[in-house]
Parts: sequence; structure tokens; C-alpha cells
Amino acid sequence: MTTPKRDTYTPETLLTVAVRIFNERGYDGTSMEHLSKAAGISKSSIYHHVAGKEELLRRAVSRALDSLFAILEEPGAVRGRAVERVEYVTRRTVEVLMAELPYVTLLLRVRGNTTTERWAMERRREFDQRVSDLLKAAAADGDLRADMDIRLATRLLFGMVNSLVEWYRPHPGSGYDGDQVAEAVVRLAFDGLRTDS
Amino acid sequence: MTTPKRDTYTPETLLTVAVRIFNERGYDGTSMEHLSKAAGISKSSIYHHVAGKEELLRRAVSRALDSLFAILEEPGAVRGRAVERVEYVTRRTVEVLMAELPYVTLLLRVRGNTTTERWAMERRREFDQRVSDLLKAAAADGDLRADMDIRLATRLLFGMVNSLVEWYRPHPGSGYDGDQVAEAVVRLAFDGLRTDS
Repeated sequence: MTTPKRDTYTPETLLTVAVRIFNERGYDGTSMEHLSKAAGISKSSIYHHVAGKEELLRRAVSRALDSLFAILEEPGAVRGRAVERVEYVTRRTVEVLMAELPYVTLLLRVRGNTTTERWAMERRREFDQRVSDLLKAAAADGDLRADMDIRLATRLLFGMVNSLVEWYRPHPGSGYDGDQVAEAVVRLAFDGLRTDS
Repeated sequence: MTTPKRDTYTPETLLTVAVRIFNERGYDGTSMEHLSKAAGISKSSIYHHVAGKEELLRRAVSRALDSLFAILEEPGAVRGRAVERVEYVTRRTVEVLMAELPYVTLLLRVRGNTTTERWAMERRREFDQRVSDLLKAAAADGDLRADMDIRLATRLLFGMVNSLVEWYRPHPGSGYDGDQVAEAVVRLAFDGLRTDS
């Protein structure tokens, strides 16, 4: 038995618990009962902070999306040649994914059964589209291989970046630091594994 | 109400149904009842063909694993420079993934709660390790970038390849044919998106 705790949560600290449970059980598979048990407070205490689990989902995916979209406003993303900008955005996307791992994981697993989920998927596609537009601009500058379909390249690039949520863990001693991973993604995607010959 | 069909299944055709349901509901979330309903035959008819759902899982992931391991015995995987062999294996892995999409999807989603799942994960790691060994050999030949950690490169390469199960669909008009996707993966991974400058 879990002894109910006095409710010392804020909407933000409650969010940390909710995101963990959403990632463990899936959003659809999580009930208010599960959240109440995990937080150690009553359901009515949770309702004191938020309207329900969909509000927790919206706050969580907003945190991931806001961090991702903020990248696109950074100087490295708006100045210079398109190819440099898209490399910058790729590196920063990996960094945000690692820094906000539970939130981005949740965002990537959202499947579209509720209004909030569909909104999150739509925003995610918008972000991908912005990166795709940068890749297109880099191709138009002659800085990307002419034999590569840009929409396909965008999918493969995000496939590689997003796969990090499956294995990257930020604990010390997990093998890689964040900079090393971000650099490896950018080098693999833009320069390839082969030595230039 | 589904009208029960006469049982005209073989273990192989029953497998097609089971794999679809496992991928839709997750292996853990699938009961014999779900399989019986989806196949339109009674549970006892299913038990006539297989010992239970774990046997269906074993047959399904074996099909994916056998196809993947067979690649490593093909002439292109055993002759020539390591870098050519690993490019060959990458291309063929993408082709097998697309040809055996439901089976490889199931293999990649297996999470390790049963003996069969743990065995499948172990075999999958073995396959990844074989590719990693080829990458190491290519690096030793001086054919891969010296600044890339090979274990990390292996993870990123499989991250990109495996992400195909999330969006690639083999229907005509889905946008890409298999050869185009396989070629794009190999070019991106080994030569990168940038033009050589």
C-alpha cells in the first residue's frame, strides 16, 4: 500500500510524474487512477491542478514542441548558407531531444486519438516541414547531393534522430555524452561514414 | 457478429493473421480470444495448428530473423572489401525490411517479457553485432571516417533503417519504390547528404 502523500505538487512537478507514466503505459493506457497512484495523491487533488489527463498531455507535448520550434529562431538557424543552417538545426534537435528526453519521447509516441494528440502530430509535421524546407534550400544552393529526394532524406534524417529516444539514456556512464551523439548524427547525415576518396 | 468460418487455415496462413493482430494490439495485449475473432475460427481450431500465441510469435520473428541472417551468407556480404560488404548488407537489410514488413515490425517491437521475446532480442543484437563487426573491419581498412565511434555509428545506422517500419508502406502510389529507399539509405549513411566539396 502506498501511503497517500500530502499534496505538495505544482502543475509542473505533477507533469514530471504524468509524463513518466504516459511513457510507461502509453497515453491511452493511462487512467486518472494510475496517475493518482503514481503521484501518491488523490484524484481530486490532481483535478485541483489540472482539468484532466488531456491537459497534462497538452502541457507535456507543448514543452517538447516549444523547445523544438525555439531552435528555428536561434541565430544559427536563420543566418548563413542553408546547408549550415540545416546542420545547425539537426545538431540542436538532437540536443533538445536529449535534454527533454521524456517529453520528446511522449511527443513521438502520440498516435492521434484525441484533439490534443492530433494537434501535437500536426505541429510535429510542421517542424519536419520547416527542416525539409531548409534541406530544399540547401539543395537549390547546390550544397546537397542532387540524386537525393528531399522528402525521403527528411524522413531518414528524422528516423535516425528520433531513434535516439529508444536507446539514449542521460545517466553518467551510459557510454556517450550528448555532444558526441549530436556530432555523430550531423557527421553521419551530412558527410556519411565513408572517408572521402 | 462474425460468422465462424470453416477452418481452412494452415499454420502459415494463420501466422499472417496473428502478425497483423500482434502489430495492432501489441503482443502482450493480444489474447487467444482476439486471434480467434480475427481469424474467424474457434480457439480450439487455433490450438489444432499451434501450441499457443507464443508459438505464433516464435514462427513470426523466426521468419524475420532467418531472412536477415540469410543476407550475411550472400556473396555480396562475404566477398570484397569490408566497406563494400557493409554497404551491401545495409541495402539488403532495407530490402528485407520492406519485403517482410509485418514480420520485421513485430521483431523490432518485441520487448522481452517471455522466453521467445528475449530470444528474439538476443538474435537481433547478434545481427546488429555482425554488422558492427563489418563496420569495424571497414574502419580498420581506413575506409570509414576515423572520428566516428563504431558502436554509435551502428546504432544510428539501425535507427535510420528501422525507422522505415514507422512510415514505409508497400502500396503502389505510396510515393517511393523499394529500390529508391534502399539506395537513399545507403547513400545517406555512407556518403552523406552534402555534395563533396
